[in-house]
Amino acid sequence: MSSDQTSFRIVVLASGSGTNLQAILDRLHGSRGVEVVGVGSDKAEAFALERARSAGIATAVFPRDDHPDRRTRDIAMADWIESLGADLIALAGYMQLVDPSFVARFRDRIVNVHPALLPSFPGLDAIGQALEHGVRLTGVTVHFVDEGTDTGPVIAQRAVEIPANCDRAELERAIHAVEHEIYPEAIGMIAAGRVRIAGPDSRRVIVDQ
Amino acid sequence: MSSDQTSFRIVVLASGSGTNLQAILDRLHGSRGVEVVGVGSDKAEAFALERARSAGIATAVFPRDDHPDRRTRDIAMADWIESLGADLIALAGYMQLVDPSFVARFRDRIVNVHPALLPSFPGLDAIGQALEHGVRLTGVTVHFVDEGTDTGPVIAQRAVEIPANCDRAELERAIHAVEHEIYPEAIGMIAAGRVRIAGPDSRRVIVDQ
Repeated sequence: MSSDQTSFRIVVLASGSGTNLQAILDRLHGSRGVEVVGVGSDKAEAFALERARSAGIATAVFPRDDHPDRRTRDIAMADWIESLGADLIALAGYMQLVDPSFVARFRDRIVNVHPALLPSFPGLDAIGQALEHGVRLTGVTVHFVDEGTDTGPVIAQRAVEIPANCDRAELERAIHAVEHEIYPEAIGMIAAGRVRIAGPDSRRVIVDQ
Repeated sequence: MSSDQTSFRIVVLASGSGTNLQAILDRLHGSRGVEVVGVGSDKAEAFALERARSAGIATAVFPRDDHPDRRTRDIAMADWIESLGADLIALAGYMQLVDPSFVARFRDRIVNVHPALLPSFPGLDAIGQALEHGVRLTGVTVHFVDEGTDTGPVIAQRAVEIPANCDRAELERAIHAVEHEIYPEAIGMIAAGRVRIAGPDSRRVIVDQ
């Protein structure tokens, strides 16, 4: 590895095309002391891996079927992440639930971006859930990952209005554009040491100005 | 009654100080064909009733203890509301659950304002819930009332940012200020005939431009 050992080191996990990975690469990687040191996936064909290779970043694939169970797979993935000296793990369209042992090993060092204003619409197809529910506002949440599904402490949120006669594709574009803004912003704040959880019994996140 | 029979007639139900009632009186009552024709309360001492009297509006009190059960109380209240020829019932800090028979009698003609971005934080102390959960954005929802607690179709929503080191009183002021804007706006749209539910199996609300 030629990476600067004093930088803030991020591993990104992605299952799909990796547009949030690309936003992190474009807006953070190699600047402000932040470096993406690895991109992992559960899918060998994820285009996110291609983006990583193009950027000269280490990649690894941890398919579910290559391991007896999720826990074993996540231990292998965690070992790889630790070998890279990661300070933070950023889920970016990673479509697998991570094992509780993985969460415990990287407590408060895993973040995720979710396409809704949590706690509204956790889980799969948050955009579809919001459209079906008929809300006028939805948005994007960046949060720490805990053992629940999209239940961890909230770091950043931004609203997106659902216009009248909303086309789903249009709403998806608007939400993804916001993701690509606030996810790198939030990760940059964490890298700068400005983000902490208020206390052991709190789920409030303090962002120092 | 000296009221104009062609106007859009609103009855407001309130249990407390009636600041949302006042916003409706200030911004809608007597203009755009909208008239508040009655203010009901479960509490004889509610300051909302004083505001109504000052504006020359009929009032009535339906205390829970004067009736054998909630259903009987709500039937009496519904009869009074019908006697006023109400087109719409606006809950404004009305702290009682309404009986399912009341909801059925005025299907899609009861609205409420809730101090959160529903479906997040339904029920009591939505502002406290949001602060404890640590969200960065909360807001206000205007919705039709159905049999659930703050579960009815959403008419309007607006976000309110929760600043770092947020003082609860400050957040309450910000949220109430938004309520006083969007509740009269939403009621005005309903009065203008611009609001309808998309279909019998839908909870999406269409607002015609």
